[in-house]
Amino acid sequence: MAIHYPNGRRFEANTPPAKKAGSSATNMYSNRGMTLEEDLNVTNQYYLEHQLAVIHKKPTPVQIVDVDYPRRSAAVIKEAYFKQASTTDYNGVFKGRYIDFEAKETKNKTSFPLKNFHQHQIEHMRQVIGQGGIAFVILRFTVTDEIYLLDASHLLSFYDRQEQTRKSIRKSDIEQLGYSIKIGYHPRIDYLKVVESVYFKK
Amino acid sequence: MAIHYPNGRRFEANTPPAKKAGSSATNMYSNRGMTLEEDLNVTNQYYLEHQLAVIHKKPTPVQIVDVDYPRRSAAVIKEAYFKQASTTDYNGVFKGRYIDFEAKETKNKTSFPLKNFHQHQIEHMRQVIGQGGIAFVILRFTVTDEIYLLDASHLLSFYDRQEQTRKSIRKSDIEQLGYSIKIGYHPRIDYLKVVESVYFKK
Repeated sequence: MAIHYPNGRRFEANTPPAKKAGSSATNMYSNRGMTLEEDLNVTNQYYLEHQLAVIHKKPTPVQIVDVDYPRRSAAVIKEAYFKQASTTDYNGVFKGRYIDFEAKETKNKTSFPLKNFHQHQIEHMRQVIGQGGIAFVILRFTVTDEIYLLDASHLLSFYDRQEQTRKSIRKSDIEQLGYSIKIGYHPRIDYLKVVESVYFKK
Repeated sequence: MAIHYPNGRRFEANTPPAKKAGSSATNMYSNRGMTLEEDLNVTNQYYLEHQLAVIHKKPTPVQIVDVDYPRRSAAVIKEAYFKQASTTDYNGVFKGRYIDFEAKETKNKTSFPLKNFHQHQIEHMRQVIGQGGIAFVILRFTVTDEIYLLDASHLLSFYDRQEQTRKSIRKSDIEQLGYSIKIGYHPRIDYLKVVESVYFKK
């Protein structure tokens, strides 16, 4: 069940039993759309269990309007709306340092559209950098299943110049400025290996 | 509109127009119950605007079961449930360091009940300490409006011993092991002042 909601992100109920979504527009994108998030969740779980890092995805922000509260033991939300996030989706701690990132994917083959990032997320990354945190994005090209880590400073630079130049980042620029993340099995997307080599240089 | 949901936490819809909650058990606690969270949100906003720290409250975790999706521009959540959080409520970055905390209050006058903390939150704090992050709790005694910062290591110690000793932390222990936070106006709960003096010693 995939729901496309106003800010362009997808929502997927990940716990059965999920009732029908009342949507005919489900599965507009392939399952790969969900896989980056799922892969990262599994990866973060691996890091947690092996005491390598404590990084979680933040809950989807929801504006709750109506709650039915028949008994103390049960509260049912009857009306709520998806809200735009004010931060990135993932954060946590790795070797004492603050880690913050957003993960996005595209079906494009040669560039990554900047519209995948919202103003709030961009400002958040700027603030994190200002506090000395480690901020980056994980970008996936779904067609070729290639994943890159790109430091947020580069993203901000492209984002700020998009009106003057182009509204996407060339894949060649990502290849040059970013770092390829190999897809494995355990953990699936071992981004901390890249983080360690890039941000924890001796 | 205050909803008390299963894990003992309160939910408050903070954006009008909020429809009636269908609850006769609202306002079981005084408004002070909400004020600690509100005060912290205002404080964090102050820190953000003054570029002192980037700390946010995580969204309330919600298990979404049914979404009505009549048009691409509108998705209405028709059935959802409050989920127990797997982490603490607040985290972020301050001077490059990872900051993680939970905020709780009690109407008790002489001790702080440990049942305010859930196993998941306790384990999360343990993991954060293991990664070298800064973890603490902000405790408020609502009757006297006193606020303390207590390092998570102390909380964990009391929590782990509660079956053998007592199921609450004496206020006198909090006074001795913790740090009083003065309530001000701008920012209201200046906990970073304490964080800086405790965790950033020269």
